[in-house]
Amino acid sequence: MIAPGFPLPAEALLSALDYGSVAIFALTGALVASRSQLDIVGFIFIACLTAVGGGTVRDVILSRPPVWIGDPALLAVATGAAVVVFFGAHRLESRYRALEWLDAFALAVAVPAGVGVALAEGLGWPVILVMGMVTGCMGGLLRDVVCNEVPLVLKQGELYVTCAFCGAGAAVLLGLAGAAGWQMLLACAVVTLVLRAGSLGLGWRLPVYKARPPRPGSPKR
Amino acid sequence: MIAPGFPLPAEALLSALDYGSVAIFALTGALVASRSQLDIVGFIFIACLTAVGGGTVRDVILSRPPVWIGDPALLAVATGAAVVVFFGAHRLESRYRALEWLDAFALAVAVPAGVGVALAEGLGWPVILVMGMVTGCMGGLLRDVVCNEVPLVLKQGELYVTCAFCGAGAAVLLGLAGAAGWQMLLACAVVTLVLRAGSLGLGWRLPVYKARPPRPGSPKR
Amino acid sequence: MIAPGFPLPAEALLSALDYGSVAIFALTGALVASRSQLDIVGFIFIACLTAVGGGTVRDVILSRPPVWIGDPALLAVATGAAVVVFFGAHRLESRYRALEWLDAFALAVAVPAGVGVALAEGLGWPVILVMGMVTGCMGGLLRDVVCNEVPLVLKQGELYVTCAFCGAGAAVLLGLAGAAGWQMLLACAVVTLVLRAGSLGLGWRLPVYKARPPRPGSPKR
Repeated sequence: MIAPGFPLPAEALLSALDYGSVAIFALTGALVASRSQLDIVGFIFIACLTAVGGGTVRDVILSRPPVWIGDPALLAVATGAAVVVFFGAHRLESRYRALEWLDAFALAVAVPAGVGVALAEGLGWPVILVMGMVTGCMGGLLRDVVCNEVPLVLKQGELYVTCAFCGAGAAVLLGLAGAAGWQMLLACAVVTLVLRAGSLGLGWRLPVYKARPPRPGSPKR
Repeated sequence: MIAPGFPLPAEALLSALDYGSVAIFALTGALVASRSQLDIVGFIFIACLTAVGGGTVRDVILSRPPVWIGDPALLAVATGAAVVVFFGAHRLESRYRALEWLDAFALAVAVPAGVGVALAEGLGWPVILVMGMVTGCMGGLLRDVVCNEVPLVLKQGELYVTCAFCGAGAAVLLGLAGAAGWQMLLACAVVTLVLRAGSLGLGWRLPVYKARPPRPGSPKR
Repeated sequence: MIAPGFPLPAEALLSALDYGSVAIFALTGALVASRSQLDIVGFIFIACLTAVGGGTVRDVILSRPPVWIGDPALLAVATGAAVVVFFGAHRLESRYRALEWLDAFALAVAVPAGVGVALAEGLGWPVILVMGMVTGCMGGLLRDVVCNEVPLVLKQGELYVTCAFCGAGAAVLLGLAGAAGWQMLLACAVVTLVLRAGSLGLGWRLPVYKARPPRPGSPKR
C-alpha cells in the first residue's frame, strides 16, 4: 500500500532506525534488570522485551510479522547489550541518570521507526501518531510493568509520552506540507530528543492535573 | 462467516456500541489519570488505552484490524473525553464513586460489543463468552496495571468479571433459544448493568475464597 | 511451511502438550487467585489467563489463531481446574510450595509446546528459542502482573527464565544434530524440568548481578 499524500521513507533508513532503537532500548532494559539484581538470562529476557516490545505491539496491531522474526540479528544485538551491562554496569557511577539519558535517545529513535512503519503501510495521520507513540513508549512500559517499577512513561512531569506525541506530530505536519520521508523522520527524531532532553536537563514540563481544594463552605468530599 | 445458529446483529448497532464504550471508558481512564496527576498528554494516553484496549486485544486475538485503525474518530472521541476531564474533574465532588459508576456503564456497553463481534465472526459460544469478558474487562485491566492501581477487575467482592461473564452468558442462552441479535445484545447489556449496579449500590457479591484456619492438632503450615 | 533442517513433531504430540500445560498452569493461576481471595469467576478468569496466556501471545505474534479458539475444550479444562482449587485449596497444607512445584511441571510442558509450534511453522532457531520462552513464561508473567505479585519469573535466584532458555536450547541443539521431533521435545521437557527442580529442591542458581561497593577514595554516587 502507498500512503496517500505521504512520501515513503527508504527501507534502509527504517532498518537502521530499528537496529538503533533495539540496541539502546536493550541497554535500558538491562539497566533496569541490574536494579532488580537478576541473573544473566533475566538480563537478556528484559533487554529483549524492552528492545522489541514496542515494535512487536505495533506490528501485531498492524497484522505484520514482527521485524525480529525475519531478522533475528536484532535479538542478537539486544542479547549483546544485556551481556555488556551484566559485566560492566558497575562501572557506571550513577546507573539511574545513565538510564534516563539512554532512554531519551532510544525514544528519539523508536518514535520515527514507528512513524516510518505506519507511513509504509499507508495509514492515515491519526494512526501514524498512535504508532509513533506505541513504538516509542510500549517497550519501556512493558519493561517497567514487568519489573514492578513505576513506569517512567507516567512519572509526573517527565514529558515522556508528550515527547513521543509531539515528535510524531511534527512528522505528520511536515508530511501534510509535502516534505520527503526522511525529512519527516528526521524532524520527528529531533523534536522528540530536544523535548526529552529539555525535560531531563532543564526541567521543562507541562502543568499536571491537580485536584483543587474544596472552596470554603462547600460540602466535604 | 455466518454464525451457525446465531442471528447476526446489525452493523450499525455494533458501531454504536463501540462508540459508546469508547467514550465512557475514556472518561474512566482520564479519571484514573487525574488520580495519578499526569499532564494532558498522559490523560489522553491513558484514556485511549482504556477506551480501545479491550477491543484491540479482542481484535488482535481474532486477527481483525482494530476498529480504530479504520475509524480514527474513535480516538478523537477518547481524546475529547480526556480533555474534558483534565479541565473539569475538580468539579466532581467524589471522583472515586464517579469512576466506579461510569465504569459500570462502560462495562455494560463493552461486553455486548465484544459479544457482537464474536457473533459477526461466526464463533462458537465458548469464544463468545471469552470475547465478551475480554472486551469488557481488558481495557480497565490495562488502565489499572499501567497506572499501578489494584485492578478494579479483581477487587474483592466487586462482582466485576462476574458481571461480564453473566452478561455474555445471557446473550449466549438467548441465542441458543433462537432470539434475534439485538435481543441478545440488549439482554447482555441489561444483565451486566443490573449485576454491577447491584454490586455497587446494594453490596451484592459472591462468596470469596477464604483459607480455612488449620484444625486444632493439624500440622502447622 | 516446512522447517528447513528440522524434523516435525507429530500433531497429536503437540496437542497433548497443549492440554497438559493448560491444565497445570490453570491450577497455578487458581492458587494465586486463592491468595488474592477472589470469587469463583475470578478464579476462572485468572486460571484461563494463566493457562492460555503464553500460548496466545505466541500465536498472536506468529499470526496464528490461538489454539483455544478452534478447541474451546481447553477453556473447559482450565475452568475445571479453577473450580477444583476453589473448593479444595484449603486441603493443601502449604499452597505456596505446591504452587512452585506445579509451576515447574507446567513450565516443562509449555516450553516444548512453544518449541513444537515454532518447528511446525518452519522458523529458524533464534525464533524457536524465543517461542519456547514466551510460551513457558508469559502465562505466569501475566498471572503475576495482573494479581500484583512479584513475578515468579523474575524472582532472584529462581532460574525460571533460564530453565526455559536451556530447555529450548537443548531442543535446538538436538535438532541441529539431526534428532527427530519427539526427541527434541522430550529433551526440552527433561532439561527444563531438571533445572527447575534443581533450583527448587537443591538451590541451584546462577550468580546474580550485584552492584559492587565503590572503591575507597572513589567519588560518591
